[in-house]
Amino acid sequence: MKLQKVENIEFTEGGVCAAAGFRANGVQCGLAHAGASVTKKKNDLAMIVSDTECAAAAVYTTNKVKGAPILVTQQHLKNGRAKAVIVNSVNANTCNADGVVKAEKMCELAAEVLGISADDVIVASTGVIGQVLPIEPIANGVKPLAEGLSYDGNSRAVEAIMTTDTMPKEAAVKFELGGRTCTMGGMLKGSGMIHPNMATTLTFITTDADISPELLQRALSDVVKITLNRVSVDGDTSTNDMVCVMASGAAGNTPVNKENADFERFETALYAVMMNLARMMARDGEGATKLIECVCTGAETDKIAETISKSVITSSLFKAAMFGEDANWGRILCAVGYADADFDINSVDVKISSEAGTVEVCRNGAGVEFSEEKAKEILQQEVIDIIISIGSGSGKAVCWGCDLTYDYVKINGDYRS
Amino acid sequence: MKLQKVENIEFTEGGVCAAAGFRANGVQCGLAHAGASVTKKKNDLAMIVSDTECAAAAVYTTNKVKGAPILVTQQHLKNGRAKAVIVNSVNANTCNADGVVKAEKMCELAAEVLGISADDVIVASTGVIGQVLPIEPIANGVKPLAEGLSYDGNSRAVEAIMTTDTMPKEAAVKFELGGRTCTMGGMLKGSGMIHPNMATTLTFITTDADISPELLQRALSDVVKITLNRVSVDGDTSTNDMVCVMASGAAGNTPVNKENADFERFETALYAVMMNLARMMARDGEGATKLIECVCTGAETDKIAETISKSVITSSLFKAAMFGEDANWGRILCAVGYADADFDINSVDVKISSEAGTVEVCRNGAGVEFSEEKAKEILQQEVIDIIISIGSGSGKAVCWGCDLTYDYVKINGDYRS
Repeated sequence: MKLQKVENIEFTEGGVCAAAGFRANGVQCGLAHAGASVTKKKNDLAMIVSDTECAAAAVYTTNKVKGAPILVTQQHLKNGRAKAVIVNSVNANTCNADGVVKAEKMCELAAEVLGISADDVIVASTGVIGQVLPIEPIANGVKPLAEGLSYDGNSRAVEAIMTTDTMPKEAAVKFELGGRTCTMGGMLKGSGMIHPNMATTLTFITTDADISPELLQRALSDVVKITLNRVSVDGDTSTNDMVCVMASGAAGNTPVNKENADFERFETALYAVMMNLARMMARDGEGATKLIECVCTGAETDKIAETISKSVITSSLFKAAMFGEDANWGRILCAVGYADADFDINSVDVKISSEAGTVEVCRNGAGVEFSEEKAKEILQQEVIDIIISIGSGSGKAVCWGCDLTYDYVKINGDYRS
Repeated sequence: MKLQKVENIEFTEGGVCAAAGFRANGVQCGLAHAGASVTKKKNDLAMIVSDTECAAAAVYTTNKVKGAPILVTQQHLKNGRAKAVIVNSVNANTCNADGVVKAEKMCELAAEVLGISADDVIVASTGVIGQVLPIEPIANGVKPLAEGLSYDGNSRAVEAIMTTDTMPKEAAVKFELGGRTCTMGGMLKGSGMIHPNMATTLTFITTDADISPELLQRALSDVVKITLNRVSVDGDTSTNDMVCVMASGAAGNTPVNKENADFERFETALYAVMMNLARMMARDGEGATKLIECVCTGAETDKIAETISKSVITSSLFKAAMFGEDANWGRILCAVGYADADFDINSVDVKISSEAGTVEVCRNGAGVEFSEEKAKEILQQEVIDIIISIGSGSGKAVCWGCDLTYDYVKINGDYRS
């Protein structure tokens, strides 16, 4: 699947190591969970470290059940500053009586080996909920993890945060701020418990741009709303999800500390990274074979457009029809109809589109004749666009989802073993 | 699966023909839809007819897209009176420009052959959305349909409303009103596009009790809220769903026309029928292998308990774990955590229960030790209870759902063909 272009933004390589001054690494420290017969041979512990202290910001899950690492990171980011990230997969360290102690311990272990303060460490965990986190594998793992840090270690780090992900998810961009070239890159994990509600995944972004913690937080909060919060894989909002960004200032641009043109350019760069990570996450939703983009236009407000678009991409019936490559547009209209938003159902037009072409299937809320053969050809592609127009307003939104497949059931019918 | 008992209510046989004076029938009139290679050899057109005029009430889908039959039935029931039902499966007669004309025509055809007024006919359709309903098969079918009406024709009628249902769903009860024995029976179709929001299915209930249209409507609206509205198969609220009840008065009881003890007894009978139909619908959710009942107690209000319970039974991750018979209770707590309700997550206890026993898996929001072996044995049963206690309030609710299986994907990946 190709990256989606954004005006004035140039893509580059290197994920979280793309920006100057960021090292990363991942190792297999040997975390396993009760019921697992064999630990997969993959990295399970990662670190990202900046050469200098960074402005830092984060957005967290809205689930009432919050993983212990979330609680600890919230404390550590109160001052808007951070220097390193430590993150493990396999075990979510959530719903455990000793969770906060263990999450603090992870920060201390990282701080010690890096010679920094534990308060400057961001901690995250993803995996099974409700199993006690064994700290020994992490205590043993941090030394080789730190020793192996390198300015091109992003691939080892991204592998360590994957759970049911089938592919690593990284994106990086170059952009201009005040005549200086800045770089920003990120990595993300999916691929289940993904539903639009604040941060919906673990995402780590690094940049060498110079920006104040306040504006970094504002940019992140703005961009999350129109990227990660518009993805749904299964309607489940995880307990551990977090997106964080660290900005080192190494690029030497005039510091961004007000909402000027540079701030807008920074937000555009952040959008380019996060939108593409969001699309990758949806495409790699558990068991998915297709990325579904639902574009809604003509609404009175963006919010109405978003509600309608989300209603479509979260419909199990629609998702199963996409897997079956069946142009059963009645299910699209059904999902539009039960969206909790105010609009005239009799003004709704629907088109189905992909690289193979476009067919209109519904006009003014009623079916129109179309070629089932052409529709089938369109639906056989990897990226499917559902284009919904609901009137003449200026509100619009795009949301991303995936098809519902046998493999989703397989993966989740027996996740723990 | 056994019927669930309700105090002072005795179960009986006969579905919509259980009550005195109701005849029913079903025939295969030959409706087919575009893309279907072979029409399944099953009835697709049904009729229920009362010997005398009935008080009648209905509750309809809340989807903005409403099937044409819904619009016509709403008109016909304005006077709170009806004498017959005509219903077809295969084609939903929804999102068609000529939908209302066709639905009216179905009423006229039924009225003509029965010698009654078209205004006294309730019409319903279920099946594919957005394909023009061919009226000829129905016009040809109504005569044999009417000729075959009998006081024990309920099995033929229930077959005609089945779509992806794998089993007919009927329930009937006997109850006392003012010293007279009354009877009430119903039939229901599932099994996809099922989500709690007003009526979520086609349900037809008949009774020989004497009750005013106003109180009949009140009883139906009350009972829908705690039965059908607490079922979810896939989160999709259909465009055509309707539950209607006809009360003939043939039992000769003192008419129920105020909210007295008789009204309460009537509501209890209606609850016994609809609760059992709701459980059957959940158990026969598309592709389902298990009925999942989620009981939430200790909430401040019933509404909070319902929100939490619904959040659990609609979680795709939880549903897939139930299919895998995996006691992954973290997913239950995750779904409790993202429920949009006000409560203390640190007071949540969770038990998993079935005929094979009960295990506590979570206390005060944190995991407790339990036997995985015992949990597996419990989860191998057909009916699984998830018991959630969230505090010391008196609010409680039970919601019904099912597991998420390969067959759900299979059925819905290729529903039309």
